[in-house]
Amino acid sequence: MGPILFINPNSSQAVMDGIMAALAPLALRAGPAFEAVSVARGPATIASAGDAARAAVHVADVARSRPDCSAFVIACFSDPGLEAAREAVPQPVLGLQEAGVLSALGRADLFGIIALGPRSVARHRLRLRQMGVLERMVGELPLDNASAAEVGTSDAVFEQTVQLGERLKGRGAGALVLGCAGFAPRRAALEARLGMAVIDPVQAAGAMALGAVLR
Amino acid sequence: MGPILFINPNSSQAVMDGIMAALAPLALRAGPAFEAVSVARGPATIASAGDAARAAVHVADVARSRPDCSAFVIACFSDPGLEAAREAVPQPVLGLQEAGVLSALGRADLFGIIALGPRSVARHRLRLRQMGVLERMVGELPLDNASAAEVGTSDAVFEQTVQLGERLKGRGAGALVLGCAGFAPRRAALEARLGMAVIDPVQAAGAMALGAVLR
Amino acid sequence: MGPILFINPNSSQAVMDGIMAALAPLALRAGPAFEAVSVARGPATIASAGDAARAAVHVADVARSRPDCSAFVIACFSDPGLEAAREAVPQPVLGLQEAGVLSALGRADLFGIIALGPRSVARHRLRLRQMGVLERMVGELPLDNASAAEVGTSDAVFEQTVQLGERLKGRGAGALVLGCAGFAPRRAALEARLGMAVIDPVQAAGAMALGAVLR
Amino acid sequence: MGPILFINPNSSQAVMDGIMAALAPLALRAGPAFEAVSVARGPATIASAGDAARAAVHVADVARSRPDCSAFVIACFSDPGLEAAREAVPQPVLGLQEAGVLSALGRADLFGIIALGPRSVARHRLRLRQMGVLERMVGELPLDNASAAEVGTSDAVFEQTVQLGERLKGRGAGALVLGCAGFAPRRAALEARLGMAVIDPVQAAGAMALGAVLR
Amino acid sequence: MGPILFINPNSSQAVMDGIMAALAPLALRAGPAFEAVSVARGPATIASAGDAARAAVHVADVARSRPDCSAFVIACFSDPGLEAAREAVPQPVLGLQEAGVLSALGRADLFGIIALGPRSVARHRLRLRQMGVLERMVGELPLDNASAAEVGTSDAVFEQTVQLGERLKGRGAGALVLGCAGFAPRRAALEARLGMAVIDPVQAAGAMALGAVLR
Amino acid sequence: MGPILFINPNSSQAVMDGIMAALAPLALRAGPAFEAVSVARGPATIASAGDAARAAVHVADVARSRPDCSAFVIACFSDPGLEAAREAVPQPVLGLQEAGVLSALGRADLFGIIALGPRSVARHRLRLRQMGVLERMVGELPLDNASAAEVGTSDAVFEQTVQLGERLKGRGAGALVLGCAGFAPRRAALEARLGMAVIDPVQAAGAMALGAVLR
Repeated sequence: MGPILFINPNSSQAVMDGIMAALAPLALRAGPAFEAVSVARGPATIASAGDAARAAVHVADVARSRPDCSAFVIACFSDPGLEAAREAVPQPVLGLQEAGVLSALGRADLFGIIALGPRSVARHRLRLRQMGVLERMVGELPLDNASAAEVGTSDAVFEQTVQLGERLKGRGAGALVLGCAGFAPRRAALEARLGMAVIDPVQAAGAMALGAVLR
Repeated sequence: MGPILFINPNSSQAVMDGIMAALAPLALRAGPAFEAVSVARGPATIASAGDAARAAVHVADVARSRPDCSAFVIACFSDPGLEAAREAVPQPVLGLQEAGVLSALGRADLFGIIALGPRSVARHRLRLRQMGVLERMVGELPLDNASAAEVGTSDAVFEQTVQLGERLKGRGAGALVLGCAGFAPRRAALEARLGMAVIDPVQAAGAMALGAVLR
Repeated sequence: MGPILFINPNSSQAVMDGIMAALAPLALRAGPAFEAVSVARGPATIASAGDAARAAVHVADVARSRPDCSAFVIACFSDPGLEAAREAVPQPVLGLQEAGVLSALGRADLFGIIALGPRSVARHRLRLRQMGVLERMVGELPLDNASAAEVGTSDAVFEQTVQLGERLKGRGAGALVLGCAGFAPRRAALEARLGMAVIDPVQAAGAMALGAVLR
Repeated sequence: MGPILFINPNSSQAVMDGIMAALAPLALRAGPAFEAVSVARGPATIASAGDAARAAVHVADVARSRPDCSAFVIACFSDPGLEAAREAVPQPVLGLQEAGVLSALGRADLFGIIALGPRSVARHRLRLRQMGVLERMVGELPLDNASAAEVGTSDAVFEQTVQLGERLKGRGAGALVLGCAGFAPRRAALEARLGMAVIDPVQAAGAMALGAVLR
Repeated sequence: MGPILFINPNSSQAVMDGIMAALAPLALRAGPAFEAVSVARGPATIASAGDAARAAVHVADVARSRPDCSAFVIACFSDPGLEAAREAVPQPVLGLQEAGVLSALGRADLFGIIALGPRSVARHRLRLRQMGVLERMVGELPLDNASAAEVGTSDAVFEQTVQLGERLKGRGAGALVLGCAGFAPRRAALEARLGMAVIDPVQAAGAMALGAVLR
Repeated sequence: MGPILFINPNSSQAVMDGIMAALAPLALRAGPAFEAVSVARGPATIASAGDAARAAVHVADVARSRPDCSAFVIACFSDPGLEAAREAVPQPVLGLQEAGVLSALGRADLFGIIALGPRSVARHRLRLRQMGVLERMVGELPLDNASAAEVGTSDAVFEQTVQLGERLKGRGAGALVLGCAGFAPRRAALEARLGMAVIDPVQAAGAMALGAVLR
């Protein structure tokens, strides 16, 4: 069975490496491998609706070019190009935001999201209303424009994440979705500090992709 | 890391065996194993709200008795005892209906469900409205009271499943949730015949449970 | 016509007496009487989802054992066993939470709930979303773990109830639902102090049960 | 305690008599009586949005003129003047549609409505969406422009009501709301024929009004 | 093509003049003119549900009396008589609240409303839930009972409007609906101060009415 | 005041000409002119999610290149690039689908849509749920893959449009949205044949754009 391909719409090698590290514990004894690819022409980060629009085109192109894969994951929390890619290829296509949020819904009645920065919040809300699950979110709170690289490595960002997570827990959230690839190295520590389910969207999407392709 | 325990609220050994077979392809190279247990005092099948009420009590008791497990899955599509079990133990607790439906939401905009029999439809609808995702379901259609054992083995049931799936696809469903444990042996054949995503809830829950426990 | 039976899933005689006193003013000139029964094996109070799961089983059993009754009311604000009891018997079965909330919806556009304690809030919210009426609630605020007995007798609890009621009124609530049996002796005083509709769920359920059985 | 006044916005004496007969079994041993009044200037029936608009003005005037009453019920299924009357007087004001629909919600997950005629359906839907409960209705089906007098007396109308009720039951309705005053004489026979909860809105409103005023 | 008639349910000449001034920039090179008429028997302002109920009757009467018009706009933010007028005449009938809110939905994901005074907020919310768009409103905040005349002329009211607008923007609103006729002279200044889309409902309704009648 | 620019994401001159003709009756005596531009690199028609993704990028680029304009309208019913364009420029940006649907909501309680072809239906539904107005649509029915040019000129397409419109009216729709640019020449005839409000999205967007820019 062909690999499950994570399509990273930005061009950051650090994000790529983080994705592969996050997925390592999901390696099956007998089954498809995980692979990640970045979009060469992609921006350093997907920070705006314009970035997402450009990414959408590239993502579908990458998917179309890889008929050997058993499934695709769009490795950006805005799920750019999800509909276009699903239309373009017959294999399962998952999105990071959908997988992260749906996994949270399977853990608790109410959830919250932590975003990399303030500009993402409105973009994510549009997707959540489109999914029809907005009423189960207590809120999305942004970091001070952290980068995907920082969220897994910076202690200062970790502390701010804890503070935002506690505010969302105080509003009733039972699960916390980390709104970007890159958080995985901190997930266990966040769960321990916050005492609530913490969802890394890369791992959530990896797990759901396994469920989608296995027979 | 302790096993992921599927708690089967009925007492059927055939269902138990089917669950373990469905989960076999999800065996990790290094990670928690899957295990299944049936509730000794459980009925042969969960066919009514009364059965589900009784199952709810037992499920929480089983979860409380197994602090060695890393996560629990309630292996009955009505998710009996989900809230009680989550309250009773600190580990993640997933339900078959939630996992199946959430996995479908990650594959297509609209989904349908096939139930074992007519009595289940109203019970499932209550859970779907509680989840807040009812608007994304095109409908739930029942088989003629098939058993959990038959759905994986009977050719007649398979053909009826195909017919119901085609009706749901005709209403716009892009993903089909099989509303019971036991369907896994037929999942690949159903996907091929129907040309749409088909979700076995046991595999969906198994995959999401892996995502919940891995670090 | 047989009696309307209030099934009290806890074993408290004080709650039983309070229910009968609350229903006394609803005695008809010619029609069914009210009767209350407690579940012998029930806990002192229904304080958790586990308590509710256990209560659900007993409630349906009690209903099944009383074919002489014209209707049943599950006298616990979590409505444990409502679906199981409806399935088990042909008579009308009402729940305290449903009756209280529906009565509030008939009095004002927005309502609030006062819970006995913090743990109940999430459990009630699941039922309210299942009912599809969550958008009309401004919030549910908990007392500091008062008991069903205290809410009708303690002046300190009364004052806290007034304070919580004022907060909910400040958020726009036009009706206040008292989230437990036992509040009836304070209802009139609460309406006078708060200047808004105050719903005792026992009286609300008693009145709706009369409407259900009369011809 | 002053009477509970049913304000009938049309000028039909037959409707008035039917209301009083429907409420007779709800007479309390010790408590407020029921009384009904028609609006002298009202039309023979409320058949249009224009009729309802005119009725709204009169209903509030009547309520304001009766400070002796303990509660008011607007005895027309469109609930004309509900907001104006609530604003005008301090007593509880209930509407027939709200009380009928809320009572149905307390009996089953899904309900249907039978309307006097086709023109009412859209008007009722606006109120149901305003109440936020439209998703629990399987549909509203109209009679062939029956009158409020006929629905309690005509055998032909009764048979059509049964047929419409069966269609709504076939769509999943567990409770049927009769969409006008006047049906009460047929309610018990309808329940027996249909095998589902049948709600007469006059009795539903009478019962809820008792719950609203009693202490 | 006949004029587009703005029906002002109050009797204020100042409001009439303001409406005509607001519409002046929408004059077409070749097409229907705008005209405004006040309801002679109308109150000075529509400040209550009772006022709105009375206005509803008059509005439909006015529409019926003007078969020469190509469309009607109910020039009061509560849209009194919208259903009755639509039923009474074959021409398009628009409401100020609907047009204002729908125009806001076409400019941003979330909107807020500024009301003339506190009593209007609950009345407007009923209409918004009836429209099914309440979830996109961040809130409605009231001025200190300003009059329709003041909102276009008073600097103090302008400053309060700015403050309320900033609070709504802080909650995420991307568009602001001015909840009354009369604000038009201040619209451009409000947009400049607030940095967000500001909707004058008279101009919004005028524009939508042009779209409704042109061929 | 600068022109209102309709950005046509396909490269069809016929569509361009149709847009300008549809807007001609909206020419103001004194105010901004309408102008239309096609995206040179655009496909002949936007028929897939992939087309829409590519269009989204170009639309924002065009908007950014025209600071002289007072407003922009994305002249494709899928509203490609709406969020990206709003983020990119300070002027109002409207979408054809949003304007068409919102205009329908201002004319009747329920609406229907006619699509150019079957593939568009699912794409439009995603936008409608994102807007939060899906519950007011009775359905979207597709033509047999008509082109934007045909819908204004072909008699066969006109007859099919009438048939689909009658089906939607039979489901309760009071307004019909034509799901593409190009229908304007047939709008008046459709209204006459169907006896219901018919919305041409180009004219709806043109009118709303006038409301957005005028002072």
